[in-house]
Amino acid sequence: MNEPQIAEPEPLRALIQALRRLPGVGERSARRMAYHLLQHDLVGADQLSRALEHATTALQHCQRCNGFTVQTICETCANPRRDPALLCVVETPADQNMIEATHGYRGLYYVLMGRLTPLEGIGPDALQFDRLLERAGDGQVQEVILATNFTAEGETTAHHLAEMLSSQGLKVTRLARGVPAGSELEYVDPSTIAWALMERRAT
Amino acid sequence: MNEPQIAEPEPLRALIQALRRLPGVGERSARRMAYHLLQHDLVGADQLSRALEHATTALQHCQRCNGFTVQTICETCANPRRDPALLCVVETPADQNMIEATHGYRGLYYVLMGRLTPLEGIGPDALQFDRLLERAGDGQVQEVILATNFTAEGETTAHHLAEMLSSQGLKVTRLARGVPAGSELEYVDPSTIAWALMERRAT
Ligand SMILES: [Zn+2]
Ligand SMILES: [Zn+2]
Repeated sequence: MNEPQIAEPEPLRALIQALRRLPGVGERSARRMAYHLLQHDLVGADQLSRALEHATTALQHCQRCNGFTVQTICETCANPRRDPALLCVVETPADQNMIEATHGYRGLYYVLMGRLTPLEGIGPDALQFDRLLERAGDGQVQEVILATNFTAEGETTAHHLAEMLSSQGLKVTRLARGVPAGSELEYVDPSTIAWALMERRAT
Repeated sequence: MNEPQIAEPEPLRALIQALRRLPGVGERSARRMAYHLLQHDLVGADQLSRALEHATTALQHCQRCNGFTVQTICETCANPRRDPALLCVVETPADQNMIEATHGYRGLYYVLMGRLTPLEGIGPDALQFDRLLERAGDGQVQEVILATNFTAEGETTAHHLAEMLSSQGLKVTRLARGVPAGSELEYVDPSTIAWALMERRAT
């Protein structure tokens, strides 16, 4: 397995192993990162060490939306100008950012922090769907907008959530599928065009 | 530039920025890494934080070979069974590992911790070539084997070092270029074959 033949000093080996826990980082990248930090960016290494320590101790999950926050309730959930009748469900904080970037949504959010991935053992329990159910049933939410990704796992998650939430009498909607704005049909994949055809609307 | 529209909590933003300092890690990867650590691997985050702190404080450069070590002189340099007449110059500790893996070398090493990269301002001074010169001139070294990479930068580095070291009366050699063991000529690039032809030897 390409084991180093000379004994790497223990602190170096430990750093490489720790870097390997990052998603998408293999042995070779981890070693390259370690050399880089030790040789060229001791300030960056120190900064990263402190940032990890600070983030893991200071951040918690917002009790209302499950996003990361330094308070009990995050700024978005605490904002009185947000419409409490709309609850948008996203997979990650990055997805929430993308929706915020549209400046077209003034409701609240719920962040799943994942998606149903049965093959990895991530089911409704692991994602704490009961917490979302409780949040959506606060009496103020009128509509739950499912904004999970349009991938197989995201669709499965949306399907599961739609059944669970509508069985509680909640109105459940899903982001529209269709041709991306600004794109030429020639370069759009056929299944997207098929959806856009099915969901065509009067002009 | 795809700026997040909601205020990310400061510890999360700081963590993402710190992760971006790792080589090959952009904004999107850094965010994915941060979410992963915070959501799924707090133990890994803690481990990485400590490993960084430990490595940056415990590791130093070996006074003889310039590799990383926790002592003043590393285990390899301190090994009396190593042949002090041979000094192999490599770019990184990873290259040193590869040569050790051959079990065909019993001499000592010098680790440049880089290569000449004039475009990035990395010249002979930045790489402390004077330290190598001093090391190679200890009176025991009979031959310096240049094992920098066979890339443009590695070749430039080797060329520069060859001139510098041979002007001091040292015997300087370079790893042989040629067709990789076990490879079919059909799949070897032409310049490699050209080198192998020029450096052909009697059987
Ligand atoms: Zn919140
Ligand atoms: Zn050494």
